[in-house]
Amino acid sequence: MQYERKNISAMQGYVSGEQPERPDIIKLNTNENPYPPGPAVARALAAISVDQLRRYPPPTALALRKSLAALHQVEVDNLLVTNGGDELLRLLLATFVEPGQSIAVADPSYSLYEVLAAAHGAEVQRIPLTPDWSLPASFAAQLNASGASLCFVVNPHAPSGSLTPAATLRQLAQEFRGVLVIDEAYVDFVDPALGHDCVPLIRDCDNVVLLRTFSKGYSLAGLRMAYGIGARTLIDPMQYKTKDSYNTDFIAQTLAHAAIADHAYAAATWRRVREERARIREQLHQRGLASPMSQSNFLLATVPAPHSAQTLYEGLKNVGILVRHFRIPGIDDKLRITIGTPEENDRLLTELDRLL
Amino acid sequence: MQYERKNISAMQGYVSGEQPERPDIIKLNTNENPYPPGPAVARALAAISVDQLRRYPPPTALALRKSLAALHQVEVDNLLVTNGGDELLRLLLATFVEPGQSIAVADPSYSLYEVLAAAHGAEVQRIPLTPDWSLPASFAAQLNASGASLCFVVNPHAPSGSLTPAATLRQLAQEFRGVLVIDEAYVDFVDPALGHDCVPLIRDCDNVVLLRTFSKGYSLAGLRMAYGIGARTLIDPMQYKTKDSYNTDFIAQTLAHAAIADHAYAAATWRRVREERARIREQLHQRGLASPMSQSNFLLATVPAPHSAQTLYEGLKNVGILVRHFRIPGIDDKLRITIGTPEENDRLLTELDRLL
Repeated sequence: MQYERKNISAMQGYVSGEQPERPDIIKLNTNENPYPPGPAVARALAAISVDQLRRYPPPTALALRKSLAALHQVEVDNLLVTNGGDELLRLLLATFVEPGQSIAVADPSYSLYEVLAAAHGAEVQRIPLTPDWSLPASFAAQLNASGASLCFVVNPHAPSGSLTPAATLRQLAQEFRGVLVIDEAYVDFVDPALGHDCVPLIRDCDNVVLLRTFSKGYSLAGLRMAYGIGARTLIDPMQYKTKDSYNTDFIAQTLAHAAIADHAYAAATWRRVREERARIREQLHQRGLASPMSQSNFLLATVPAPHSAQTLYEGLKNVGILVRHFRIPGIDDKLRITIGTPEENDRLLTELDRLL
Repeated sequence: MQYERKNISAMQGYVSGEQPERPDIIKLNTNENPYPPGPAVARALAAISVDQLRRYPPPTALALRKSLAALHQVEVDNLLVTNGGDELLRLLLATFVEPGQSIAVADPSYSLYEVLAAAHGAEVQRIPLTPDWSLPASFAAQLNASGASLCFVVNPHAPSGSLTPAATLRQLAQEFRGVLVIDEAYVDFVDPALGHDCVPLIRDCDNVVLLRTFSKGYSLAGLRMAYGIGARTLIDPMQYKTKDSYNTDFIAQTLAHAAIADHAYAAATWRRVREERARIREQLHQRGLASPMSQSNFLLATVPAPHSAQTLYEGLKNVGILVRHFRIPGIDDKLRITIGTPEENDRLLTELDRLL
């Protein structure tokens, strides 16, 4: 007998980038930070005793939220710590979207949004980006016309890396009649010279939630830690009603806390990624693979004719280099390439020279 | 503006037992194992390098599922590893219950079931247990008449500790037209002489999911690890569609794996808890606090007149001993007391002598 809900039965699950176990693979396909977590995180790990695991962890990660509040100059109650960004995205749907209602996404975007909507039983309205990956001027009007009660915007954008200015998002939040989720998974890699900062929006707009993660900027994808920043009226129902009672574990809270305390270490890795991002973008351009300016830790490179992105993806995979190819119209002629270490990037360039 | 769904706005969140930070508190209120995790878990923790946290963890905890499959003599595909038992309970609702449909619970029971149902927008049908905390003979008939598409039964029962035999649950599964979830959070503490084993049910009944957790039996409440065992037709949609993509982290998977590999250590703690359970039940009985036979790691003791459970709870709290008192009709004259170490239990008895 079939016991699944109809929408679950009908949906397709999320397909993540390949995660090979072989350590010799150069993995430029899932946007991990190429540098390991810092010594402060290692010390915090070494200091944990298994005796500390016997009891339930702090249910709302209060100590970590205090240090995040100081970092972002917000209140502790503006912060929700989650088991990876996935959990926050799911909680936003579970808390603010009735099954049967619509959400909206900028198209193309992170494919998980649509999978989560399908699991929740929500419809998805796709609003196309402009050819240069910007939000169209009519985005807010289209959102309101679509009837969506929540909108996911990833910024810097994935898979292009382009950055929408905070002022544009502020205006969008003011015009949109639903909850605006700004997924800042990659925001740590934005050039500080731009002065980009969306945190002030959460003070002025009661409908904005920012998503931050330890997975990319803090090199802790294996730990599953992320957080949301928003008005207390949005955070409270997720914190006290819809999240699992003890959603993040003691070790993850402790290591994330250590990572924040040694923010300077992480920031140094972001600088190195930015330097390589500029170098590799130029090098790819010289080889005919143009990519838009990226403020993220990846580049979306268009593969020039007569080559195909699929063939190039396979050619690289054959020599142990994984990049991401999406079989999605509009981006199926491109490869999304995570910025690796200088050595990994050089190896990529060498192999591209051989294949092109 | 209010953005929450109506059911979220109207519901009350789950209230867990108190989790004081003070290490000198004798904590007999949230059913943690009184003994720490074993040396194999400590060694596994010490062997982890932060470099291993840079990449995403195995999405379905395959290595851990392999060792669980060997332990339970089931297939890897019968197993779903979750971020604590909470996640599994939530996934069962999300996957098998349409919002607006009903679930059923034996009453009284673990209060989280009703909170999760409220968050999902499902109705709850409460089917009273008999006075000795057993399922009534008409339970299956009442379930089917209620229209519930899923039923949660905690076994051993919480808060009483009474055990429903596997044969009774098998018959229930065969008669019930929905998904039967047997929450075995406390099953590790069942006397092995009883030969109690519900795992065979999942081979014969395509509508049964068992919940197991590392929180109690394996002393790892702080780690948030649990798992479900069920027919592949029930496990697959949760594994590949409704759970968060990377729902458990690398460290938690590694330590849970080590705990299973040293199953003998955990089993020794269960034996010590059973021995203390028998001793304390007798000691409480001598003091006028009767409790039913418990196959769990707690006792539900009735507080005799003229004392009140509330006053006794407060009296114990004042001297640094936390037990659980539920202000729920039918059990508000009782205290749920977790079995501690012999020293902790002796201290409890001494303080009870003083207070009574």
